[in-house]
Amino acid sequence: MKALLFDKAQQLHLDLHYPEPQIKPGEALVKVRRAGICNTDLEITRGYMAYEGVLGHEFVGTVTSVASTEDKQWLGRRVVGEINAACGQCPTCRANRPTHCPNRTTLGIFRHNGAFAEYLRLPVVNLLEVPVSVSDERAVFAEPLAAACEILQQYHLRPTERVAVLGDGKLGLLISQVLRLTGAEITLIGRHPDKGQIALRQGVSYEVAPSGEEPERLVKKIGECDLVVECTGNQAGLEMAKRLVRPRGTIVLKSTYHGTPNVPLSLYVVDEVTLLGSRCGPFAPALRLLERNLVEVDALVSAEFPLEEGAAAFETAFGRGNIKVLLKM
Amino acid sequence: MKALLFDKAQQLHLDLHYPEPQIKPGEALVKVRRAGICNTDLEITRGYMAYEGVLGHEFVGTVTSVASTEDKQWLGRRVVGEINAACGQCPTCRANRPTHCPNRTTLGIFRHNGAFAEYLRLPVVNLLEVPVSVSDERAVFAEPLAAACEILQQYHLRPTERVAVLGDGKLGLLISQVLRLTGAEITLIGRHPDKGQIALRQGVSYEVAPSGEEPERLVKKIGECDLVVECTGNQAGLEMAKRLVRPRGTIVLKSTYHGTPNVPLSLYVVDEVTLLGSRCGPFAPALRLLERNLVEVDALVSAEFPLEEGAAAFETAFGRGNIKVLLKM
Repeated sequence: MKALLFDKAQQLHLDLHYPEPQIKPGEALVKVRRAGICNTDLEITRGYMAYEGVLGHEFVGTVTSVASTEDKQWLGRRVVGEINAACGQCPTCRANRPTHCPNRTTLGIFRHNGAFAEYLRLPVVNLLEVPVSVSDERAVFAEPLAAACEILQQYHLRPTERVAVLGDGKLGLLISQVLRLTGAEITLIGRHPDKGQIALRQGVSYEVAPSGEEPERLVKKIGECDLVVECTGNQAGLEMAKRLVRPRGTIVLKSTYHGTPNVPLSLYVVDEVTLLGSRCGPFAPALRLLERNLVEVDALVSAEFPLEEGAAAFETAFGRGNIKVLLKM
Repeated sequence: MKALLFDKAQQLHLDLHYPEPQIKPGEALVKVRRAGICNTDLEITRGYMAYEGVLGHEFVGTVTSVASTEDKQWLGRRVVGEINAACGQCPTCRANRPTHCPNRTTLGIFRHNGAFAEYLRLPVVNLLEVPVSVSDERAVFAEPLAAACEILQQYHLRPTERVAVLGDGKLGLLISQVLRLTGAEITLIGRHPDKGQIALRQGVSYEVAPSGEEPERLVKKIGECDLVVECTGNQAGLEMAKRLVRPRGTIVLKSTYHGTPNVPLSLYVVDEVTLLGSRCGPFAPALRLLERNLVEVDALVSAEFPLEEGAAAFETAFGRGNIKVLLKM
């Protein structure tokens, strides 16, 4: 099959004759229909996770084969899939935290070939059928939208709270849209006012990220926040988050990136601030939000390329000002 | 009056003729009976908070004078007191977070002369009467015990959870005793097995802190923890805490110290770990725990000095192996 590989030489290349995945008991073979390029994919091509293999973890596809006859009702269904394949046996899995299973593989990220290919394999328990009314172009957002929903899974956002979302990339745009559904006051803070238009249309306030000595002006304007979501992907984002959050408030960390930033922890103790790491989230509510048309995702698609032009797709995804780049198989 | 000062020259000295505090409307003058030396006091003498003035914030005393006639019922009462004097007017105070009031002064720590003197002043609203059955030597633990209670104010510790407390200093010994009252499994981890005896008597497990490559052995022995309380006061403590905590677990930060440690935040995101800053706590439950005799504090007292020998008391408090050093006025 055709597959977009990140290889030992740390190069991205298209393999026209990559072996199809071999499914094991409990697994399904999925023919990929659309896949999305995520910041994590870009970070991997910079060396994050030291991953080698087929990239990609945001996808929608059709089940073409299952390994176990009791799973045959999945054949032909259009699906998205939870990207962490857990062992199901360990204490972490038994405690219902499968996305943290220490034996997990992760689609396109860790020891599991990904979605930038004609086929992928995943356990059937990871799959969710896509409602008929949700198009492929929208269903491919289920994974990052689930990551946005994870914040509400971890944090009780009250409708009267004030929230800042730092970073107007793909994830920031999805998160601010999901959090706005609570009725809370949401301000998206970024460097791309054109992207801010998407937020503004949804009733989310937008502010251009301050630089240098300006943060205090922003704090004065929007007020101290109960919750700040940091998805800028850099250390300056966390410093800004600390300035914006109120005493006893919460900062959700959504970015993974290289390096170990310096963090003035004593300030977090004195102000009793919570730092909350947040990663993959629940797919079912993400699909419900898409089906109910409560989140605008179409405007987030900057471009679509055929799988064969994967290298060009990555170049576009790296380009400043671009949001979501899709691959079509 | 006599007062133990930390002066402009960053020296500790006894002033025999320091002016008595002048009380303002709503305030009480308290004759100090006993005061305790806290790690924060030691950190201040190393330059933390750039404080100048009378040190000390752990105390028990007797109200000898009030500024407003409507407060005269306080005269003669034996009291402890919340150390943060808030403005009562600002949005933070109105939101019932007076310990985070941006206009606050803090007894013996920030713009408010402290308890290592014959007299101190505090707003009457900060005072709590000490039950008759609680001796001065025990009441002086109300402040650090309140800081231990703050953890249960912020975090819902379930009786089935597993907890590690890192650091067997004064605060670690109090915290492990308070947390044990929930029925949860508690392990205190430190470097002073003699102090560990106090914990063991209370049904708290004790482990000697591992060094170098050993932490994995400890993780294997006690298991991944739902909650880890970091009160070692150094960066290595946080690294150990991260190794001990389970995915989606919580690390409570109790130490304030100089410097901005390097923190591998991406690991906190991937494992969805919560970092929770924790500072001053509620005095009323602390007094109830003392009255109910549920926390052993007598064994924590290493020595008692008269105020006049404050410098010697500090020397003793700095000494390795010593726990709580008290001053008697």
